[in-house]
Amino acid sequence: MLIQRLCIVGVGLMGGSLARALRQAGACAEIVGVGRRVERLEKAVSLGVIDGYDTDIARAVADADMVVLAVPVGALEHCFSAMKGHLAADAVVTDVGSVKRHVLRAAESALGAVPDYLVPGHPIAGAEKSGIEAADASLYQHRRVILTPTEQTDSKALERARAMWQAAGAEVVEMEAGYHDAVLAATSHLPHVLAYALVDVLGNMREHPDIFRNAAGGFRDFSRIASSDPDVWRDICLTNSDEIARVLARYREELACLEADIRAGNGDQLRRVFQRAKALRDQYAKGELNGD
Amino acid sequence: MLIQRLCIVGVGLMGGSLARALRQAGACAEIVGVGRRVERLEKAVSLGVIDGYDTDIARAVADADMVVLAVPVGALEHCFSAMKGHLAADAVVTDVGSVKRHVLRAAESALGAVPDYLVPGHPIAGAEKSGIEAADASLYQHRRVILTPTEQTDSKALERARAMWQAAGAEVVEMEAGYHDAVLAATSHLPHVLAYALVDVLGNMREHPDIFRNAAGGFRDFSRIASSDPDVWRDICLTNSDEIARVLARYREELACLEADIRAGNGDQLRRVFQRAKALRDQYAKGELNGD
Repeated sequence: MLIQRLCIVGVGLMGGSLARALRQAGACAEIVGVGRRVERLEKAVSLGVIDGYDTDIARAVADADMVVLAVPVGALEHCFSAMKGHLAADAVVTDVGSVKRHVLRAAESALGAVPDYLVPGHPIAGAEKSGIEAADASLYQHRRVILTPTEQTDSKALERARAMWQAAGAEVVEMEAGYHDAVLAATSHLPHVLAYALVDVLGNMREHPDIFRNAAGGFRDFSRIASSDPDVWRDICLTNSDEIARVLARYREELACLEADIRAGNGDQLRRVFQRAKALRDQYAKGELNGD
Repeated sequence: MLIQRLCIVGVGLMGGSLARALRQAGACAEIVGVGRRVERLEKAVSLGVIDGYDTDIARAVADADMVVLAVPVGALEHCFSAMKGHLAADAVVTDVGSVKRHVLRAAESALGAVPDYLVPGHPIAGAEKSGIEAADASLYQHRRVILTPTEQTDSKALERARAMWQAAGAEVVEMEAGYHDAVLAATSHLPHVLAYALVDVLGNMREHPDIFRNAAGGFRDFSRIASSDPDVWRDICLTNSDEIARVLARYREELACLEADIRAGNGDQLRRVFQRAKALRDQYAKGELNGD
């Protein structure tokens, strides 16, 4: 058995989906959930996602050989503090947070140093849904999981984290934490901020009360991620603020240029930008932008 | 038979899909296509989308009782000029353009006045695909088509345009042209500009050559419309420039506020905006934002 006792801290969409996937794969013997709200945890038990639960993280991790922190990144430091001195000797700790430098900062702040059993991880998967009801054993199938080990990371811990994600169906890659945070700021964090902003701007157009009624498929797809969990995304914005602010500034500059071109009637320049973007997006859709 | 001879000017995704839908509904006896490129027109004939074609618009419209202009909005004025004096006495002319005040401007400029047989129209449907190969009889099924008649519009012409779209499966509503352009600038034109800009910004990040490889579902959905036809969207930006520039400026302001909140670590304010947007987007997804 890959994992004897899996402890999932935060039994929502991400943690619940991992539990379901590992159970389906027969990769773990026992799954215990940790959370603050007993009714949510009992729901997870009744749905068969976890076998049992505890609201006390120190007690729950005591016999676990694998601990997955699936909480908003703002809660990580508290988790590390609460687990301190309670982990089993062979325990591996990993997380699913979207900001990898922050996991290291949180561990360092709570524990004085980044421990060798910590394997920061980030599955490039998710959904605009949240909560245990949305947990899905196939969420990580054929998705990328990025692990960002440090020089201190124990190689066996890294291998066990990798094996767990592979058992859940994911393709595992490794990356430096800072590089991860810069790339994801552009490909994931920026689009989420843009989607929230679009819906908010439209919602504030009181002069057009029926504005959403005239929204088409483009708006629907574009804004889907604005249904994402506000707590999760507040934490991501706060903990990857430098990188997100940097790409946001760059994006605002691009919009300022396009707005100037639109006001000036620079059709050739507009067409050039649209054509360039379309060519890239078409390549992306065909899977041709692997960057190798 | 609803239509005896339907003339589709511009046999691409929009025009071709309408032709397919009307043929499937048994709503027209003959369909003639007009375009500049013979090989595209012959392709449309071989696909069964049109019965015949002409590269000369004046000749093609001569016996048509319904003319649909399905060209980028920048080409409308030329179409009106070319049809001048060649339309049948009972012909209705409609279009599928995304900027309704421009159709009126183009007609006025070419003909001296907006003719009573013109019924400007805009189906809120489309796809990031383009071209006759993507034409689909179900494209307009249960979609909204907005007609923007003027005070001059002949009521029988309006009824015939309405009946045509209903035969294609659409739900037809009426709106004032200027109101249409302001609303669509926000719900459709702005998202397209934002999507093009996002792909372009990422494409310009030469420091991260594998950036698209680490893009997740959020990016995929968000950027789908960046595969839209650059000519069509250049024309929309040029002909609805005031409204688009206005909402772009508003959007840039919202982004500037969010960027300031991110830099300052204003978690409460970020959460407030994200939560407000999520609530609206969730309502939209449930069809609760009908604005009535």
